[in-house]
Amino acid sequence: MRLAPNAELYMQVRERTVAICADLQLEDYCVQSHWFVSPPKWHLGHTTWFWDVFCLRPRSLSRTPRGWDLALNSYYQSQGSPLPQAGRGVRSRPTIREIMDFRRQVDESMVLLLQDGAPDSANANETRSETWGKTFEVGIHHEQQHQELLCMDIKALLAMQTDVIEDLRCLSARVPDPVSEPGNPNRWWRIASGIYEIGDAGQGFAFDNERARHRVFLEAFEVRQELVTNAEYLEFMRADGYSRPELWLSVGWDWLHREGTRAPLYWRMRDEEWWEFDLDGWKKLDPDQPVRHVSYFEADACARWMNSRLPTEAEWETVASRESGSMHRQLWQWTQSAYLPYPGFRPFQGALGEYNGKFMNGQMVLRGGSVATPPPHYRVTYRNFFPPELRWQFSGIRLAR
Amino acid sequence: MRLAPNAELYMQVRERTVAICADLQLEDYCVQSHWFVSPPKWHLGHTTWFWDVFCLRPRSLSRTPRGWDLALNSYYQSQGSPLPQAGRGVRSRPTIREIMDFRRQVDESMVLLLQDGAPDSANANETRSETWGKTFEVGIHHEQQHQELLCMDIKALLAMQTDVIEDLRCLSARVPDPVSEPGNPNRWWRIASGIYEIGDAGQGFAFDNERARHRVFLEAFEVRQELVTNAEYLEFMRADGYSRPELWLSVGWDWLHREGTRAPLYWRMRDEEWWEFDLDGWKKLDPDQPVRHVSYFEADACARWMNSRLPTEAEWETVASRESGSMHRQLWQWTQSAYLPYPGFRPFQGALGEYNGKFMNGQMVLRGGSVATPPPHYRVTYRNFFPPELRWQFSGIRLAR
Amino acid sequence: MRLAPNAELYMQVRERTVAICADLQLEDYCVQSHWFVSPPKWHLGHTTWFWDVFCLRPRSLSRTPRGWDLALNSYYQSQGSPLPQAGRGVRSRPTIREIMDFRRQVDESMVLLLQDGAPDSANANETRSETWGKTFEVGIHHEQQHQELLCMDIKALLAMQTDVIEDLRCLSARVPDPVSEPGNPNRWWRIASGIYEIGDAGQGFAFDNERARHRVFLEAFEVRQELVTNAEYLEFMRADGYSRPELWLSVGWDWLHREGTRAPLYWRMRDEEWWEFDLDGWKKLDPDQPVRHVSYFEADACARWMNSRLPTEAEWETVASRESGSMHRQLWQWTQSAYLPYPGFRPFQGALGEYNGKFMNGQMVLRGGSVATPPPHYRVTYRNFFPPELRWQFSGIRLAR
Amino acid sequence: MRLAPNAELYMQVRERTVAICADLQLEDYCVQSHWFVSPPKWHLGHTTWFWDVFCLRPRSLSRTPRGWDLALNSYYQSQGSPLPQAGRGVRSRPTIREIMDFRRQVDESMVLLLQDGAPDSANANETRSETWGKTFEVGIHHEQQHQELLCMDIKALLAMQTDVIEDLRCLSARVPDPVSEPGNPNRWWRIASGIYEIGDAGQGFAFDNERARHRVFLEAFEVRQELVTNAEYLEFMRADGYSRPELWLSVGWDWLHREGTRAPLYWRMRDEEWWEFDLDGWKKLDPDQPVRHVSYFEADACARWMNSRLPTEAEWETVASRESGSMHRQLWQWTQSAYLPYPGFRPFQGALGEYNGKFMNGQMVLRGGSVATPPPHYRVTYRNFFPPELRWQFSGIRLAR
Repeated sequence: MRLAPNAELYMQVRERTVAICADLQLEDYCVQSHWFVSPPKWHLGHTTWFWDVFCLRPRSLSRTPRGWDLALNSYYQSQGSPLPQAGRGVRSRPTIREIMDFRRQVDESMVLLLQDGAPDSANANETRSETWGKTFEVGIHHEQQHQELLCMDIKALLAMQTDVIEDLRCLSARVPDPVSEPGNPNRWWRIASGIYEIGDAGQGFAFDNERARHRVFLEAFEVRQELVTNAEYLEFMRADGYSRPELWLSVGWDWLHREGTRAPLYWRMRDEEWWEFDLDGWKKLDPDQPVRHVSYFEADACARWMNSRLPTEAEWETVASRESGSMHRQLWQWTQSAYLPYPGFRPFQGALGEYNGKFMNGQMVLRGGSVATPPPHYRVTYRNFFPPELRWQFSGIRLAR
Repeated sequence: MRLAPNAELYMQVRERTVAICADLQLEDYCVQSHWFVSPPKWHLGHTTWFWDVFCLRPRSLSRTPRGWDLALNSYYQSQGSPLPQAGRGVRSRPTIREIMDFRRQVDESMVLLLQDGAPDSANANETRSETWGKTFEVGIHHEQQHQELLCMDIKALLAMQTDVIEDLRCLSARVPDPVSEPGNPNRWWRIASGIYEIGDAGQGFAFDNERARHRVFLEAFEVRQELVTNAEYLEFMRADGYSRPELWLSVGWDWLHREGTRAPLYWRMRDEEWWEFDLDGWKKLDPDQPVRHVSYFEADACARWMNSRLPTEAEWETVASRESGSMHRQLWQWTQSAYLPYPGFRPFQGALGEYNGKFMNGQMVLRGGSVATPPPHYRVTYRNFFPPELRWQFSGIRLAR
Repeated sequence: MRLAPNAELYMQVRERTVAICADLQLEDYCVQSHWFVSPPKWHLGHTTWFWDVFCLRPRSLSRTPRGWDLALNSYYQSQGSPLPQAGRGVRSRPTIREIMDFRRQVDESMVLLLQDGAPDSANANETRSETWGKTFEVGIHHEQQHQELLCMDIKALLAMQTDVIEDLRCLSARVPDPVSEPGNPNRWWRIASGIYEIGDAGQGFAFDNERARHRVFLEAFEVRQELVTNAEYLEFMRADGYSRPELWLSVGWDWLHREGTRAPLYWRMRDEEWWEFDLDGWKKLDPDQPVRHVSYFEADACARWMNSRLPTEAEWETVASRESGSMHRQLWQWTQSAYLPYPGFRPFQGALGEYNGKFMNGQMVLRGGSVATPPPHYRVTYRNFFPPELRWQFSGIRLAR
Repeated sequence: MRLAPNAELYMQVRERTVAICADLQLEDYCVQSHWFVSPPKWHLGHTTWFWDVFCLRPRSLSRTPRGWDLALNSYYQSQGSPLPQAGRGVRSRPTIREIMDFRRQVDESMVLLLQDGAPDSANANETRSETWGKTFEVGIHHEQQHQELLCMDIKALLAMQTDVIEDLRCLSARVPDPVSEPGNPNRWWRIASGIYEIGDAGQGFAFDNERARHRVFLEAFEVRQELVTNAEYLEFMRADGYSRPELWLSVGWDWLHREGTRAPLYWRMRDEEWWEFDLDGWKKLDPDQPVRHVSYFEADACARWMNSRLPTEAEWETVASRESGSMHRQLWQWTQSAYLPYPGFRPFQGALGEYNGKFMNGQMVLRGGSVATPPPHYRVTYRNFFPPELRWQFSGIRLAR
């Protein structure tokens, strides 16, 4: 059977999710290493459940076994009370085989549906084929988001095992090193003051939180072309950066002492040298690479120490949309913007309205993308967000002034 | 002795702090009712210590007894490691009499200093009399901030005692009811899109966080003239507002269930009617008054239910600076802006640099003022801030759309 | 090869441990459902590690891979700092296949050793073949203890999954229902006052905590022949037993309200009827069975409500050693004795000294045994112990007066 | 008016409670320094409420103002739901003056009642004058218990203030130093094996938990005449006693690391010397004094290190009742007995049944008394009890073997 374009796209994306896990042992699929990560098994189940809930159920084609909603719902209150995220690691059932069967069944139904092109609308929320198309696109991007989450979660999981088994790696989830430019830390882009437009212009897919496109007034500013490197971050550490309260936000200072943080995540000192854990194992820290896996608090403190600051998301997007090509997607870059609605923000309709809007408190925006981000998922208007203390995402430091 | 103008201002402000506590019993001065409030005794001590640290010590005139720094430092890392805020209630010493003696001694030294006009600079951070003047002004505004905090903390303290002793009141700290206008909920101010300026223009005192004055682009918007009333909030409650997840931010929904919140703070149901606690005791809820003591989460959810939203702080300031007179200071009004630095923000120099900047994470901005705000302390550029779940401050709901 | 008797015993015991898990899915081996249970994979690894540490290592025959000590040590401080029990569920590695290989290797070495009969002593702690024999016996009994723990932990694990997948069961771990006698709740054994002897008399294996055998003076008492039944416990519940503070110990009352406990563990109400989860699935509560899975607090409160009390362990052992045959091992029976050393108690020598003695605080003694107890493991002097609030063990209620 | 003997006893005891607080500042009365201590104000109120509830209310003579039950009830479920102990420090009301007025009113009513001798019975629980007498005696002993608690709590309170104000003392609550005998640590009392009787013989007042008097069989044992001294405890510390897991109970080891404990409570190192805080201030540690303010875990570990053990309460009482005169009340002495009911234990009737019995879990028995114990309160059968980790009571170490 020749697949229609959307069906082909669908299958490509779906297969990539499974492929990321190819090097895992079955045990690795089941374990939740920290409250904020999810077992790989759960990602495989949840992404499938997502297609089922938003595409198949409205057409009475659901394939979800009874009871599974409870285990596979992430946070959709409209789909029943979700379990706490921290409790995903206590579920041995459904098994991985059952989850994979579930994937196959949903894929089968989805492909049948997609072969028809735009299926008839199924309910009041989907009154035009345009709406079907949007739901489909959200599903694709949702699955791609979980592909990056899988890379993050697998890294966190394997790192935790290396006190027992040293040489763990997961090449299928591997993320290439961010390619650092031959560094000249003195080159800065300069933007003049004026009115700029940011947000989604409607040319391709975007999440609701990237809209409405709107005007902002920016005072003149500069953004450094190179990310902060490991070498620079080591200087910050050697200058007692972690011990000088005047460099830190108050809650960051408290976080530092509560957690005993003295270095980026995945660094460890061995024989007087710093090593870094990556998806292909432990290796000596490369000073020319951009520093990775830092919290907002660390990014903010290091920037302050370097007599700079983090950019706002409007500044970031203004630079990135003009300097295309040179501001590549090495790492997600912390901005000093809190995650808040744009002027004119309207959540997606229906249950998808829970996708983004309800998280607009207590999180900071990151911009860019990382080598773990599926390339079609990247766009300059993309707004990623995390609580300021988390750092298992592929985050780095961009300077502004 | 005739007092110089600044000495007179100083004494007026200092005496007002003591006067707010006039109706308290001695026991009330000592107790910390919640982790986020402070015993009145601590406020009386800390404000005095502040003058000592920033005005007397640089001139070697300190009057602080040995050991007291530990008890009276709020959060200045540069002045030694402060104790956790939650532990202020375990200190019976210094006693109130000792604190009052300390006040008198510091006041004596301060007045002597102020009689001289602008004293000579005392250290590298105070190279001009201009700097002395600024430090003095910060001290005045610091004490005024604590006057409002005292009203908030006394209210929280007394409310907690009313399960044992019903008819508690503190008329000296009393805050008049916000005068609600003869309500027409249909009147909205309208602002056209364009570039506006916000922030301190340098005409009077301002904190560092109100600067730099800068341009913002605002899309057209409207702001309702009347605050949300108790009657409107009761409608929200009757419409199951506290039970509908689609109205709430995700962390707000969690907060709601963790705390069991079902109504604004200081409300209680008695004989099928709602009563409200105030500094002059329990009384029946007045439906025409603006609703008070709500969290950011409640304000946000109620606004959403009313098909509106909260204003940003730029919107609020733009309206307030144009509609002077009609937008008066009834209550602090939650904005949907996170507390973040303005473009060009520079912290105060020296130890006062810890005053504002280090709190720029995890808090939301409130604008306006309240009847507990000392009138000279009010200004249209003032940025107040609290974590989104707290509600013992005099907070209300302003709608925008 | 014909196995020597000890080698044969060893292999029988080792194979039984694996057989208990026969019906599990691979995912079930990995998950830690509560802080106080361990993943089945961990039990399989830890019991093997135990043989390695106490039998193979002293002879330089260790087969434990580097790093595994950290993961498989339960609580032996002498063998390095053990990880917290609550963190056993975050280890995906070593994998089950690796654990099973480890089992095979250790078994191979152990059998070789056991074919020799009593091997030469290997260190200062094993100066006679008698000592070797004792270490071997401890290993056997240690593995049998974990066999019962496996049944308990598998039950807790599967019960937790039944909100998602209803019909879980594990027949290989299955524990037959305690056979209740044709009940006559009015038959009591009567013991006259006098001096009795309790504790291990040295005829067979015993843990150090069962020694020294010693004399106790008992006042006259009676012990009921039948355990408290489900029917009796339901009466206690219907008489508002869970709501009457005068029946409960103070910490028990607090526990009740903190956990929201209203019934024994593994009970649930469905369609106005009580159902009970067992290793062969959910079934309607049988009123004639002894009540199971109650905490010490529940046992104590129910006994009080029945105008009785729990027996002390000295009373229990005195009855059990005289009334053999009729006081069979249906369930572990809470006694009102705290777990404390007997007069003349001496811990095992060497690292095994950590086996029992250091837990003698905060726990209550249970006596008897259960259908999950491997029969050769049972003896009348056996002292089992758990914190008073735990109830995933097979515990029941014996009355005394 | 000449007072009847019981009225005179009553007034003496009541006045002593107030006298213990004589040197406190008013602020000291209000503060709760740790969750397990109570503000002195609360003790003054609660002891008064106790007389009101058990003596005046049954005769309709209650003087307790409306609402105060909530604040002054300690743990009597029969008298309404008591507030959590940890929340006593948030109550500024009733004020001390109000509490003292309440004391005077209750005292007045009590004295009137006591002048009549044995008043008529007032309810079903008090059918004979004998019952009245018992309730009165419990009230006297209850107040005396709180006198010792006041000394403990005042010491904990003042110690906490000494980081701010160095030279605090409370001579009215002062407890004389335990007089150590001219020490010969080699003298031990020896008791032969046999049947002994312990528990209240009915000659004077006793709490319900001291009954029934019963026979116990004791194996031969020895008890050291001198308590463990500071000098001996320092040797234990210098021998790394706090760092050797083999000396500690498992929960004790966890407690040690959770709290960071390295020395007895109220010890601090200054200029390379140990100092000890007492109710008359900080002073250098006297090596010849018995070590004070140790937890059960510390007592147990130190005894183990000294190749001894703690006595059981039966052993302690057997020695103490035979060696009268030489085993004086220096400090409460930890026994290795958990706090459990004696054979034949029957709680007091009515609400007083909550006095002792419901605490019989999770606590260890201490025997003896301390210089803070009111002399008439002492008796050889007295069973004091505390959770094993607490040490603000006047506790010491008695060795057995």
